[in-house]
Amino acid sequence: MLEEVIHDQCGIFSVFNNNEAADLTYFGLYALQHRGQESAGIVTSDEGKFHLHKGMGEVSEVFGDKSNLKRLSGKMAVGHTRYSTSGASSIINIQPFIITNRNEQLALAHNGNLTNAYELRQKLDAAGSIFQTTSDSEIILHLIARSKKKTRIERISSALKTVKGAYSLVFLTENSLIATRDPNGFKPLCIGKLDDSYFVTSETCALDIIGAEYVRDVEPGELIEINEKGITSHFPHPKSLIKPSFCIFEFIYFARPDSRIFGENVDKVRRRLGRQLAKEHPVDADIVIGIPDSANTATLGYSEESGIRFEIGLIRNHYVGRTFIDPRQKIRDLDVKVKFNPVKGVIEGKRVIIVDDSIVRGTTCKKLVKLVRDAGAKEVHFRVSSPPIISPCFFGIDMPTTDELIGANHSVEEIEKMLGVDSLRYLSLEGMVSMPSLPNKTFCSGCFTGKYPLKTPLGNGNKRLTKI
Amino acid sequence: MLEEVIHDQCGIFSVFNNNEAADLTYFGLYALQHRGQESAGIVTSDEGKFHLHKGMGEVSEVFGDKSNLKRLSGKMAVGHTRYSTSGASSIINIQPFIITNRNEQLALAHNGNLTNAYELRQKLDAAGSIFQTTSDSEIILHLIARSKKKTRIERISSALKTVKGAYSLVFLTENSLIATRDPNGFKPLCIGKLDDSYFVTSETCALDIIGAEYVRDVEPGELIEINEKGITSHFPHPKSLIKPSFCIFEFIYFARPDSRIFGENVDKVRRRLGRQLAKEHPVDADIVIGIPDSANTATLGYSEESGIRFEIGLIRNHYVGRTFIDPRQKIRDLDVKVKFNPVKGVIEGKRVIIVDDSIVRGTTCKKLVKLVRDAGAKEVHFRVSSPPIISPCFFGIDMPTTDELIGANHSVEEIEKMLGVDSLRYLSLEGMVSMPSLPNKTFCSGCFTGKYPLKTPLGNGNKRLTKI
Amino acid sequence: MLEEVIHDQCGIFSVFNNNEAADLTYFGLYALQHRGQESAGIVTSDEGKFHLHKGMGEVSEVFGDKSNLKRLSGKMAVGHTRYSTSGASSIINIQPFIITNRNEQLALAHNGNLTNAYELRQKLDAAGSIFQTTSDSEIILHLIARSKKKTRIERISSALKTVKGAYSLVFLTENSLIATRDPNGFKPLCIGKLDDSYFVTSETCALDIIGAEYVRDVEPGELIEINEKGITSHFPHPKSLIKPSFCIFEFIYFARPDSRIFGENVDKVRRRLGRQLAKEHPVDADIVIGIPDSANTATLGYSEESGIRFEIGLIRNHYVGRTFIDPRQKIRDLDVKVKFNPVKGVIEGKRVIIVDDSIVRGTTCKKLVKLVRDAGAKEVHFRVSSPPIISPCFFGIDMPTTDELIGANHSVEEIEKMLGVDSLRYLSLEGMVSMPSLPNKTFCSGCFTGKYPLKTPLGNGNKRLTKI
Amino acid sequence: MLEEVIHDQCGIFSVFNNNEAADLTYFGLYALQHRGQESAGIVTSDEGKFHLHKGMGEVSEVFGDKSNLKRLSGKMAVGHTRYSTSGASSIINIQPFIITNRNEQLALAHNGNLTNAYELRQKLDAAGSIFQTTSDSEIILHLIARSKKKTRIERISSALKTVKGAYSLVFLTENSLIATRDPNGFKPLCIGKLDDSYFVTSETCALDIIGAEYVRDVEPGELIEINEKGITSHFPHPKSLIKPSFCIFEFIYFARPDSRIFGENVDKVRRRLGRQLAKEHPVDADIVIGIPDSANTATLGYSEESGIRFEIGLIRNHYVGRTFIDPRQKIRDLDVKVKFNPVKGVIEGKRVIIVDDSIVRGTTCKKLVKLVRDAGAKEVHFRVSSPPIISPCFFGIDMPTTDELIGANHSVEEIEKMLGVDSLRYLSLEGMVSMPSLPNKTFCSGCFTGKYPLKTPLGNGNKRLTKI
Repeated sequence: MLEEVIHDQCGIFSVFNNNEAADLTYFGLYALQHRGQESAGIVTSDEGKFHLHKGMGEVSEVFGDKSNLKRLSGKMAVGHTRYSTSGASSIINIQPFIITNRNEQLALAHNGNLTNAYELRQKLDAAGSIFQTTSDSEIILHLIARSKKKTRIERISSALKTVKGAYSLVFLTENSLIATRDPNGFKPLCIGKLDDSYFVTSETCALDIIGAEYVRDVEPGELIEINEKGITSHFPHPKSLIKPSFCIFEFIYFARPDSRIFGENVDKVRRRLGRQLAKEHPVDADIVIGIPDSANTATLGYSEESGIRFEIGLIRNHYVGRTFIDPRQKIRDLDVKVKFNPVKGVIEGKRVIIVDDSIVRGTTCKKLVKLVRDAGAKEVHFRVSSPPIISPCFFGIDMPTTDELIGANHSVEEIEKMLGVDSLRYLSLEGMVSMPSLPNKTFCSGCFTGKYPLKTPLGNGNKRLTKI
Repeated sequence: MLEEVIHDQCGIFSVFNNNEAADLTYFGLYALQHRGQESAGIVTSDEGKFHLHKGMGEVSEVFGDKSNLKRLSGKMAVGHTRYSTSGASSIINIQPFIITNRNEQLALAHNGNLTNAYELRQKLDAAGSIFQTTSDSEIILHLIARSKKKTRIERISSALKTVKGAYSLVFLTENSLIATRDPNGFKPLCIGKLDDSYFVTSETCALDIIGAEYVRDVEPGELIEINEKGITSHFPHPKSLIKPSFCIFEFIYFARPDSRIFGENVDKVRRRLGRQLAKEHPVDADIVIGIPDSANTATLGYSEESGIRFEIGLIRNHYVGRTFIDPRQKIRDLDVKVKFNPVKGVIEGKRVIIVDDSIVRGTTCKKLVKLVRDAGAKEVHFRVSSPPIISPCFFGIDMPTTDELIGANHSVEEIEKMLGVDSLRYLSLEGMVSMPSLPNKTFCSGCFTGKYPLKTPLGNGNKRLTKI
Repeated sequence: MLEEVIHDQCGIFSVFNNNEAADLTYFGLYALQHRGQESAGIVTSDEGKFHLHKGMGEVSEVFGDKSNLKRLSGKMAVGHTRYSTSGASSIINIQPFIITNRNEQLALAHNGNLTNAYELRQKLDAAGSIFQTTSDSEIILHLIARSKKKTRIERISSALKTVKGAYSLVFLTENSLIATRDPNGFKPLCIGKLDDSYFVTSETCALDIIGAEYVRDVEPGELIEINEKGITSHFPHPKSLIKPSFCIFEFIYFARPDSRIFGENVDKVRRRLGRQLAKEHPVDADIVIGIPDSANTATLGYSEESGIRFEIGLIRNHYVGRTFIDPRQKIRDLDVKVKFNPVKGVIEGKRVIIVDDSIVRGTTCKKLVKLVRDAGAKEVHFRVSSPPIISPCFFGIDMPTTDELIGANHSVEEIEKMLGVDSLRYLSLEGMVSMPSLPNKTFCSGCFTGKYPLKTPLGNGNKRLTKI
Repeated sequence: MLEEVIHDQCGIFSVFNNNEAADLTYFGLYALQHRGQESAGIVTSDEGKFHLHKGMGEVSEVFGDKSNLKRLSGKMAVGHTRYSTSGASSIINIQPFIITNRNEQLALAHNGNLTNAYELRQKLDAAGSIFQTTSDSEIILHLIARSKKKTRIERISSALKTVKGAYSLVFLTENSLIATRDPNGFKPLCIGKLDDSYFVTSETCALDIIGAEYVRDVEPGELIEINEKGITSHFPHPKSLIKPSFCIFEFIYFARPDSRIFGENVDKVRRRLGRQLAKEHPVDADIVIGIPDSANTATLGYSEESGIRFEIGLIRNHYVGRTFIDPRQKIRDLDVKVKFNPVKGVIEGKRVIIVDDSIVRGTTCKKLVKLVRDAGAKEVHFRVSSPPIISPCFFGIDMPTTDELIGANHSVEEIEKMLGVDSLRYLSLEGMVSMPSLPNKTFCSGCFTGKYPLKTPLGNGNKRLTKI
């Protein structure tokens, strides 16, 4: 994606029974930073004692001082990495959260977004619950604390039946890991194994980095408990509610190409999207270049299918710091220039196809097209490996508002003109949803269609409780 | 390069006559961070008053707090970004350096390495000069301060005639920029222009980011002064000493592909290196993949020449923090895994050619080969777009010692076995030096041949004065 | 006090209706630092928006960066300064606390200690309340949040009727200050006025520094609300519970000599304690010296009554930093030496009376006596302006355990020997309690008698919830 | 002193042959902070290796993190504590300074001020010396580095013969301490001993805190070297130049009362100043109070001589942080109020004598008088235990300019009115200089007379090189 304005909100990694639980969680989170890199936290459980460290910044910054990891003793851990807007005030919202209730401690890491958060929070508040964060995830903890059920699993199940929306959750207790996915299974969550240790994490790439083996996904609607006796599986929800609606955008952009999610290799799906794009929208050109790094795989697919030469015409600058200063007026298109260096020798005099995975607001896109033209391109054809984004996400993706989505407000012809390209084509909805092996209806494509598998919050009520 | 163990030591950017001198320098340094990203500094000159800010870290960290840039008022600036070993003690060595002498201030930024630094420092010390840094660059300042010549240009010329080795230098004075390259011109340095403003910088990519136009290179042995009257050119050295010996490694690895140095487009030279490699060392295989990002261009060249399909089989993780913690024993090959993610879907079942630009110690290389094999490669053929590195550099590159250079201690056959590849081939010296358009002897290829254009320091004497 | 091992736990300052609310609170807290100087916090209320800044350290450190105070906009404020043990973990316990409940915000500052905190927390926890701190003060907030009463004053009153122990409290709401003292009135709390602004604070010295006028004390058991209509007074508790039990130790040591508390001038009471001490325990000597600064006033009283010359024989070093490093073995009595410099010229050859306000553990005392002897004193007579401390405090003073209290474990004769003095005498209980103008039984002297005005927590149960 | 606007510039502490050299230096500096508390530094020498730590702040802040002291290994040390104006730019001026010359390291700590600094710096600069600080002390190091003499002692002696003014210096070398005092001996410097260890320090109070024994003063004009052979004494200057001119202000205000300097007990001299003041300027009053803490001893002297009762009418607040925020308009006389609390109970209805050691600008003085009147004083009589200050110091005291000195610009009658006191009297010059046992002419009283023992720098030339 050219403009990084769409964010998944979190990555989760957790460990059961490993002497290096905190270290492995560190590396797991490290591998998951594409899912959120603005803050990170790890909680370990050491014979009933919880240890916590969290902070703003990339994983290697938050845990850069080795002494922090060393303090995190224990054989069980849960970690969370998260996208967040900047600002000191959001520090309280960094996960995992820990609570003490009935003399037991419980830590929570959450990926996804609840859709009835506002109503639940109002009710709990009226009943005297005191909230410490502005995160929807905290609601789950209050529901658990207030449940009168006897066992912890029952209390958690009871809370899960009350909340609605998207949640892949991992709880850490004093002697177990408890993990669950909402009945729609919007967000991925899988189980791994290494010797006698278990892991629950958002993507398989986090298992690969530590050399663990993929066991299986946590199923939509499933609640598992991992303790010294092994893995126990529960299904707290009525069967009628279980209806897989996997987030298609994970394949388009979020997930790492070397991960396997929803039962499929991300790289392979992404390449098929590129091939399909070439089939649907061929064009006569000299070279095809991708927006690095996210569109590279789809671009190779396009090149293979079309037979047009793949080139590296844009180099990405990876030194973009978090605190990059504002572009000044005098330096035109600076925000694009600091991210992408066009290679004149490659582009000059060529008819160029640029492939990207999606277009969000289109503003950066326009600048990049100009950069490519300035480098001497004779023609510029833009191809997008997904349909136009026309509607917001209520299930865990942070997106600009509908007003800002170029695809929601303009026809393809209009956008073509706005970007200043010789042609612009999007992949069809049909084309997109038929690329994964699973059937079409197994996916949530709400952001491309405006049709969602669950009731969404009315108006902007939900805005009061954000995960970000 | 797979292992980032070879470092150029610095990037320089300077501005004459621009109201946003500090901001432009910031962006210039930002574009030069591939030349050294561990520390950065900027000095501005504002009507005779100098302002300085420097610190450890990437450019966006050192200058992330906008107030720092704001303080740097003035229409002239010089900035420096530098590779350095970690450790607080090295903070004193961050450039630019400023001195006050005869009530005039002078700031200095230096790229390169002096070869008679040790002897000069001994002499100056015996005469009562007090050194504040352990950098060889400070010697130049002491020589200038002690010169009895009348004008500043004369004093600087006098100092330059005393030092030997590699130096691309920019001085900032109260009303001018003074820039020079050693008579061999080891390191690049060029002049740019934007409206009424001038710039002197290491690579043209720093001109591109601010939209300035490339004017010409500072010539080997040339000393230029830029002041309100324009550019004046001087040649302080005897003609007999001027003998271009451009660093070939700038083309192989250091310079950014979108830069133009030594009169040539880096991307084009690098692609020719890949084509030549394919001509010299073809092999039957299914796909060719490069070590991202530095070997990408040569890999495309190899693919074009050989007709073997280019693939993205390795994805680079760009979240590697400066303070990455030590790999633990349990996590095998962790240092490679945190940097590179092999894409199983691409590699599995294939005969794979891996292209890299150079091999230094070979240790990471070996681990990467294993990673690729573990991802299912049927065969692994390694191709290197330069000859074996067999000797250290004395002119501005920080390299491991000869003992650590695998090419200095083992035959190609031995290395082939050590890496565990099906075949290993290096580009020939002949092949390499004939890829740029300039004649063979215009380059210093000392690290590949052990033969240098200048006398090198005896023994380890020079080790006492490092730029790092 | 020679050893600063007894601490009151907090100072409170609050403002209603002043454009410089945060600044005045800063100065108010500054004047109250003798009540607790390890952390500080201020909350302001600006048209319904709350702003908070708090941190570890002295007031001038926490708010040293002016931008922090500037951010605290609004015409109402409450501030808290607090004694705390060191350690990052206690940062969460820094007051004021803020909660949001039923869309209203509420900030709380508390001086004192609840005696039924443990039982209440157990109950609330079982009912699903989630605690964020380990402070007893948070219990009050949960009780308010859970109250079903309609108005805020009713909800607060309901909570106050549930808690037991010592509490001088100030709440900040969006449009009012609410302040209360427990029915025993253990801790001081008074009202001040300056033009149209009101203040509620622990001691009058905080009114003096900002030039405000003392209006009256908040009465034991009284609950006042200050809003735009003025001050409204409530008495939520049954009359039978209201039984003044002012902390006598405030007169002995805590309160600042220039303050007026419990209706009396501290300096005058303290001087009377010194005079009474001289009457009860005269001794033939050349000079009388006090432990600076706390015993100075009593020492002058002793000197006046006895006619023995007052001298400055000990100078206090005020550079003792928070992070003073551990004394090494080689430097004997270092902890006393870094605090007190004996003046040889004053002490040498003299029979010396040392006056202190209390003896807690006696260890530092012993070292000081040695220092005075080493400086040449011929005789050393120790006089204490309070009785032996024999029992802990449950109402807001942080004291060593009974095991550590020298007065609880040894007779005066034994202590005399342990300290190595020629004579040691304590003021009688009778003598002490008759020095204030109010009758004897108006005070809590529990630490000197072991008899308390309220039931104290059994065993160490209460230890689980500390204010510190 | 009421207004702390006069500052001595430094305290020095050094150690030879002690395993806890850095720790002892820490405590020595701690005891010397009244001589300068804004920055501190320690250098140790460990078998030829120097270790340095320095920073802005009080000693306990700079060395608060124990790891800093731990790093400072070695049996020899020199430390410096210094008054400085705020601002990051002055960090480079924090002593001790270290240089490397002829492969030997040398650290320097300096108390005093050179009077020919400007001329010397001009000369050295013209000869090519590069200065890194704006401190006059650095000149001494350049002179040593440039000396052609063979031994280090000869090189140092040669440098000392070139500089003029006030200097108590300690050099640390790889195997010795070298200490010296200028021929006038303006500033104190003494030698101490503990077992086999030697110490050289500014005041004896630094010996007392570590339990070391006072041996003797370093004599005016003497240069001593302490190494494994013991103490060697040198006299590099011609005898004619040696002319003791001890700073009388050390007795009036700077030195700690428990120190012994210039052969005399500070406390005793200070008390005699108070007695003499009472003799010269008696007045009928009820009580006499001193400005705490510096005027306490003189006040007791006044009380004894006059028979008027000594009282503690002003309490000093010791929480004044370094970063105290600006007083706002609304809070009148805030700067005095945050420092001094008048005790109403003591002052009300009384005729009060206030004793201070000196008056500098008089502005704070006036506010304090108002505070005392507001507390109810019937009469206020001001007595000063030194004559009016009429002239700046060129030998190591930082003073306001002559324009700001109230005594230089107004008669006593005028000042009396300006302060709003019933009477104001200063001690006579005669009275002051006859209080120490040494004869009158042994002292420099330049700030009271405008007559100095050495030629002072013309105009403001010297301002360019400050120690501050």
